[in-house]
Amino acid sequence: MSQHPTGSLGTPQPPALTTLPSLRVAVLGAGTVGGEVLRLISQQGGELAHRIGGRLDVVGVAVRDLDRDRGEHVPAALLTEDAAALVREADLVIEVMGGIEPARTLLLDAMAHGASVITANKALLAQDGAALYEAADTHGVDLYFEAAVAGAIPLVRPVRESLAGDRIQRVLGIVNGTTNYILDAMTRSGASFEDALATAKELGYAEADPTADVEGHDAAAKASILASLAFHSRVRLTDVHCEGITHVSSHDIAAAARMGRTIKLLSIVERIEEENGERISARVYPALIPDHHPLAAVAEAYNAVFIEADAAGSLMFYGQGAGGSPTASAILGDVVSAARARVHGGIGPRESRYAELESIPLDELRSAFYISLTVEDRPGVLAEIAGTFSGYGISISTIHQELLEQEGEEGEPTRAHIGISTHRALESAMTASLDVFSSTATVLSIDSVLRIEGE
Amino acid sequence: MSQHPTGSLGTPQPPALTTLPSLRVAVLGAGTVGGEVLRLISQQGGELAHRIGGRLDVVGVAVRDLDRDRGEHVPAALLTEDAAALVREADLVIEVMGGIEPARTLLLDAMAHGASVITANKALLAQDGAALYEAADTHGVDLYFEAAVAGAIPLVRPVRESLAGDRIQRVLGIVNGTTNYILDAMTRSGASFEDALATAKELGYAEADPTADVEGHDAAAKASILASLAFHSRVRLTDVHCEGITHVSSHDIAAAARMGRTIKLLSIVERIEEENGERISARVYPALIPDHHPLAAVAEAYNAVFIEADAAGSLMFYGQGAGGSPTASAILGDVVSAARARVHGGIGPRESRYAELESIPLDELRSAFYISLTVEDRPGVLAEIAGTFSGYGISISTIHQELLEQEGEEGEPTRAHIGISTHRALESAMTASLDVFSSTATVLSIDSVLRIEGE
Repeated sequence: MSQHPTGSLGTPQPPALTTLPSLRVAVLGAGTVGGEVLRLISQQGGELAHRIGGRLDVVGVAVRDLDRDRGEHVPAALLTEDAAALVREADLVIEVMGGIEPARTLLLDAMAHGASVITANKALLAQDGAALYEAADTHGVDLYFEAAVAGAIPLVRPVRESLAGDRIQRVLGIVNGTTNYILDAMTRSGASFEDALATAKELGYAEADPTADVEGHDAAAKASILASLAFHSRVRLTDVHCEGITHVSSHDIAAAARMGRTIKLLSIVERIEEENGERISARVYPALIPDHHPLAAVAEAYNAVFIEADAAGSLMFYGQGAGGSPTASAILGDVVSAARARVHGGIGPRESRYAELESIPLDELRSAFYISLTVEDRPGVLAEIAGTFSGYGISISTIHQELLEQEGEEGEPTRAHIGISTHRALESAMTASLDVFSSTATVLSIDSVLRIEGE
Repeated sequence: MSQHPTGSLGTPQPPALTTLPSLRVAVLGAGTVGGEVLRLISQQGGELAHRIGGRLDVVGVAVRDLDRDRGEHVPAALLTEDAAALVREADLVIEVMGGIEPARTLLLDAMAHGASVITANKALLAQDGAALYEAADTHGVDLYFEAAVAGAIPLVRPVRESLAGDRIQRVLGIVNGTTNYILDAMTRSGASFEDALATAKELGYAEADPTADVEGHDAAAKASILASLAFHSRVRLTDVHCEGITHVSSHDIAAAARMGRTIKLLSIVERIEEENGERISARVYPALIPDHHPLAAVAEAYNAVFIEADAAGSLMFYGQGAGGSPTASAILGDVVSAARARVHGGIGPRESRYAELESIPLDELRSAFYISLTVEDRPGVLAEIAGTFSGYGISISTIHQELLEQEGEEGEPTRAHIGISTHRALESAMTASLDVFSSTATVLSIDSVLRIEGE
């Protein structure tokens, strides 16, 4: 801990606070979130000192470019390009730079030098959380990451502390604001995915390269973190089945609406009880949920997470999943916890993976499906499709057929759209049925395959 | 800590677990919640041991009547009437007996003898939380009480830990399931308060003596706990303005519906910024909220809490606020935290009251109101009422007038109901206006005075 009696940010401190111990804080990254973290520390320094029993003394802010002006809350005097040196002199390291490297090396080095780490880096946690946890364990420091999942919504702490005496069965969440914004816009306006994405970019809800969001990678990283915590097992990013929303069409949205359903990108983590024990599933895909499901009403870029636990029953958490100040709020909560442990002793939660539950392959999961096909409109087609499904043990729940306008030349076959929803069926059975359809002459195209959840 | 290698409840433990240290757990009370706590400890003992790094060894369950059968999860051999002796030999004391005494004395004694305390006793915390906090401080033990507010919903931990780096402005919550069940039934069926209460009693949603719920005392205790945590100040039960729902009529519910509003019993804790600093308000009353407000959709005995914080923005938490197993889930989460601190060192959150904010008297608050009056239906009456309001600086937003059927003898004046909603006005101005109305000959009765929130 530093011996300097005043905070480097020059925050005015009430006299009594100057007697409190000081904690050396390093911030890695000074983007939107970093700037907000520094603003909160600067504006609430006195209050935070009371809550911690110690003062936060920001000793440096690591950036890639020293010359950029970063506003009043990021004092130029604190900026450094030497992140490696900075993390070695800190008690607490706040990592908001993102990306795998150099974040990974810096955090491991910080912990090796005795610093506790607070990170919002979901990609790093999902890809190499084990290395971070192990370093925290080895060096007796804390690793906090509330901001990595669902921004300002307290979720990591409730899952690993409040529900520590319960048995979580299932978490169903909207944890990516960008894709929720896009799907919500498509639902409200009937826009195509491309148009809704363009609007989201204009309004700052989507990044210039939206791949991580729209392909579901961000939601999958969060699912791996949530599954690890909920099931006390190590769930890697590669264990998470991931489908994005780029193939969701305005036709799908309209078909869902006709069925009283809404399409949302869901992160689902689930405990699956089986005859000889249990396995877990973590997956991300766009799914149809009933309009009356509380997640269906989650609009714009908001996040919401449903948790089902044996004793607690159903819980829902709702709030802002991204943005500078919501994310900074989550980080500061962790900073206070890590700082209190520095001052008063004790250790924060550790990786809990005693259960070592295996992930169930997607093929062995059972889901209800919505499938949309374009077919030749001739007698026997429906019977053929139904027969294929039936052969694989898939039971149809509803069928909607729509004749398409003749587009081609005279004499070409009339075509129809068929929308089918099924009861719960094995993924492998659905895959096999779709294989059959792709070599069935009367099935002209398989337009959509979406799952139905939350029934 | 006990040296016994196996749990007294005889839970089968995986071999590796027997090497873990054992924690002596005393349970005070074996009612619905106590029974569920014991069931969870017994059924999840192995899992909990992994999460704690130590085993929970229930050494006794204090009850008033040894002879009552309490089901399989409350072994008769553990029952004792000597709670005072039991708490002195425990590492952790779980208090689910309720009431002020002997709970208060037992918990103070437990802490004096070195035990950490987990309690669900909102009445005790609201009335004498300071004494408990001080005992925890003096004796270096932990005091946890997640189950005291909103049952299974993680709320205490998010407010005092997740949001520790933020500045909470306002908490608006439905935190009493009984009254929500009654108001929801009145709204759905048009039933009177008395009929809805009778049904709630039959179905087990209300106790034989429902006073603590329907008069708002339970919600007020929770408001005092939430306000203390949110504002880092000591907020006593006597600081909480409290009105119950016994005077809410089916007429009020119908009038609210006509205005697109729903009546809910709200616990509101709020930071009020003023010219020379800030004060806080904690209050409980039935209020009209817009139908589109998320709290309006909270049905039956569910609880939900909205939190507004500077950086996090709006957060909502939803779930079961009462019942044996949801409450036990919250208690077990705290047990794991307190037990981990026993095994690994460190201290839990302490009372934080550095801010010492004063409570604002109700008179000085500003609220929007709905007032229902029965008046003589003659020219000038409305002008008189509007004039009185205007004289006290109260501005009317809408008026709804309804002529009543002639009930009395020929020649008696015709009567009308007037429903008025106002813009935000000082409570003292409203009180003064109502004083004038009660001595105004043309105002036959003041039927309702309710506040409007969540706009």
